[in-house]
Amino acid sequence: MAEQVETNNTFIAIKHLINGFPLQTHFQLNSQPLNLCVKPASGDILLKNLCVSIDPYQINRMNIHSSSHNVSSATPSIVPGQAISAYGVAEVVASGDPGFEKGDLVFGIIHWAQYSLVKAGESTLRKLDTLGFPFTYHLGVLGLSGLTAYVGLFEVAKIKEGEKVFVSAASGSVGNLVGQFAKLHGCHVVGSAGSDHKVTFLKEKLGFDEAFNYKQEKDLKSTLAKYFPEGIDVYFDVGGEMLAAAVANMNPFGRVAACGVISEYTKSKTGPPAGPGPNMVDIVYKRIAIQGFLVIDYFNVFPDFISKTAGYLRSGEIQAAEDVSVGVHSIPSAFVGLFHGHNLGKKIVKLA
Amino acid sequence: MAEQVETNNTFIAIKHLINGFPLQTHFQLNSQPLNLCVKPASGDILLKNLCVSIDPYQINRMNIHSSSHNVSSATPSIVPGQAISAYGVAEVVASGDPGFEKGDLVFGIIHWAQYSLVKAGESTLRKLDTLGFPFTYHLGVLGLSGLTAYVGLFEVAKIKEGEKVFVSAASGSVGNLVGQFAKLHGCHVVGSAGSDHKVTFLKEKLGFDEAFNYKQEKDLKSTLAKYFPEGIDVYFDVGGEMLAAAVANMNPFGRVAACGVISEYTKSKTGPPAGPGPNMVDIVYKRIAIQGFLVIDYFNVFPDFISKTAGYLRSGEIQAAEDVSVGVHSIPSAFVGLFHGHNLGKKIVKLA
Repeated sequence: MAEQVETNNTFIAIKHLINGFPLQTHFQLNSQPLNLCVKPASGDILLKNLCVSIDPYQINRMNIHSSSHNVSSATPSIVPGQAISAYGVAEVVASGDPGFEKGDLVFGIIHWAQYSLVKAGESTLRKLDTLGFPFTYHLGVLGLSGLTAYVGLFEVAKIKEGEKVFVSAASGSVGNLVGQFAKLHGCHVVGSAGSDHKVTFLKEKLGFDEAFNYKQEKDLKSTLAKYFPEGIDVYFDVGGEMLAAAVANMNPFGRVAACGVISEYTKSKTGPPAGPGPNMVDIVYKRIAIQGFLVIDYFNVFPDFISKTAGYLRSGEIQAAEDVSVGVHSIPSAFVGLFHGHNLGKKIVKLA
Repeated sequence: MAEQVETNNTFIAIKHLINGFPLQTHFQLNSQPLNLCVKPASGDILLKNLCVSIDPYQINRMNIHSSSHNVSSATPSIVPGQAISAYGVAEVVASGDPGFEKGDLVFGIIHWAQYSLVKAGESTLRKLDTLGFPFTYHLGVLGLSGLTAYVGLFEVAKIKEGEKVFVSAASGSVGNLVGQFAKLHGCHVVGSAGSDHKVTFLKEKLGFDEAFNYKQEKDLKSTLAKYFPEGIDVYFDVGGEMLAAAVANMNPFGRVAACGVISEYTKSKTGPPAGPGPNMVDIVYKRIAIQGFLVIDYFNVFPDFISKTAGYLRSGEIQAAEDVSVGVHSIPSAFVGLFHGHNLGKKIVKLA
């Protein structure tokens, strides 16, 4: 039976493509009538969005150079004026797909909007079993942020018990979980973050062995030598210009897992080039591996990840570090804030 | 029966540790009487050296900073005034080790000298089966240069048929074999070298698909884009500052195998830092792997390597590119010449 829906939809769009840092003025809050009929077998699914993920990588899709190879087919460019797609949790309002029915709770690619009209296949939609946890956990600790930390450590860097792990952007959505997973695996963990408040949070709330405020350090190479007298075995590169300093302090057969570089994302392409690279003599003599990775290549690991992480959450061995704002209108400031280090843990906006 | 030897030994030493580029005046030709008795079961072996390998990495062992972590335990520092150890081929003159006897042909760590007194274990000495090839081949195409090219391509980068391969320092001891092995594996191969003469040699004698003189190129990123319209799958980094340009032109899941960086070796440690590093956004989005490696970790591959390569040499499918000087006195100029690109192929000095 076809379902008729008449309501209003509010969504966030960019006014134009962005070069460098995002500003709130780059965004607009649009509102338009949602007046449609979802027909059986049409494949259309209308979703009421409950919460959406706010991620740094989105800036690449808004960049004036976003048609370049930096944007993979999995993360297509964002079109000015149109609703911005993002991972989120939603409830099915009307379904023209036999795999979903009204009232289903789902996870997948929705929009920075109150409602989304999607096709199940195109939005990688799947029914969400909350496992008894809040919706928001499924965007952070139990979602792609958690999976990124998990595969980076266990599939890419292949950490071993007792190894020394350094993580940058350690209070962010991925970094905080890198540290927590590595601690649970018996590693020594040091994180860097951008404020004393974050440093305290990492050490006192999340159990990092050490943490430091990189903004107060002049010579990162010496700083890391101080925190790692026995050298670094694994550097989880979430962001910041620490690669050269980390490589200089690495042990033989050290591994760098690189999942994203928030500081690079906002550099104007016409601006100065990247900082000095790692010393290649070190790379060779210490047989260091630097491996870039995207979580989308590791969805096969998800079942293992989710069962382990849910267990850790229930036992209290892992903390969910979330930073939640409320309402569609708060999305631009939530997103812009990522690039100024305003968030502590995973940034999420609740919509309903 | 103890064997008494009385002769004179001539050897090369450094006068003092070196900072930056080596000069011939840094070296001296020493001569001293060799008057010794090799006793049975002493473990001592006296060798008459036939030919020695001249390799860029040796400069790291002569560097004023060579006590740093850049020098692995496999390549200890060189002491001024003392004979310089190096891989070579030699003939046993007298043996106090039951595994070797007078007249045996051996391969292992000997010296830039007419004679070497070694312990079998300490010099990784093994009997050499020449397989019917000249001695010198066992330092180049059938030795560690060949093995470095082989393991870099097949064990580290894991090249696949049809892939696009770029190799720097392509006319050098390792680079020329990287190109030849990759061609035999069905890859498209482009090399960079430092003169038009070398470029011609790579294309006309060694069968590279393309080669260019990097000294005549202003923008390496554009140059590589021109030679690789379909992108680079594997970059074999033998030297030069091409990593950033190569990464910019790499395809998704590209691999960089880094075995040594001759241009870095001679940089004064107090001089300017390394050039710009690779773009980390590229590394992440294209899931690029950069892997440093040392051939000493892959001796298990040697039997496979030697049987395949000997076959290729016999069938004429691989050419041995050698650059041979004669006499102990010629070693300093042979070594210094490496850093000015004077050699075409493997640099070897014949001693007897």
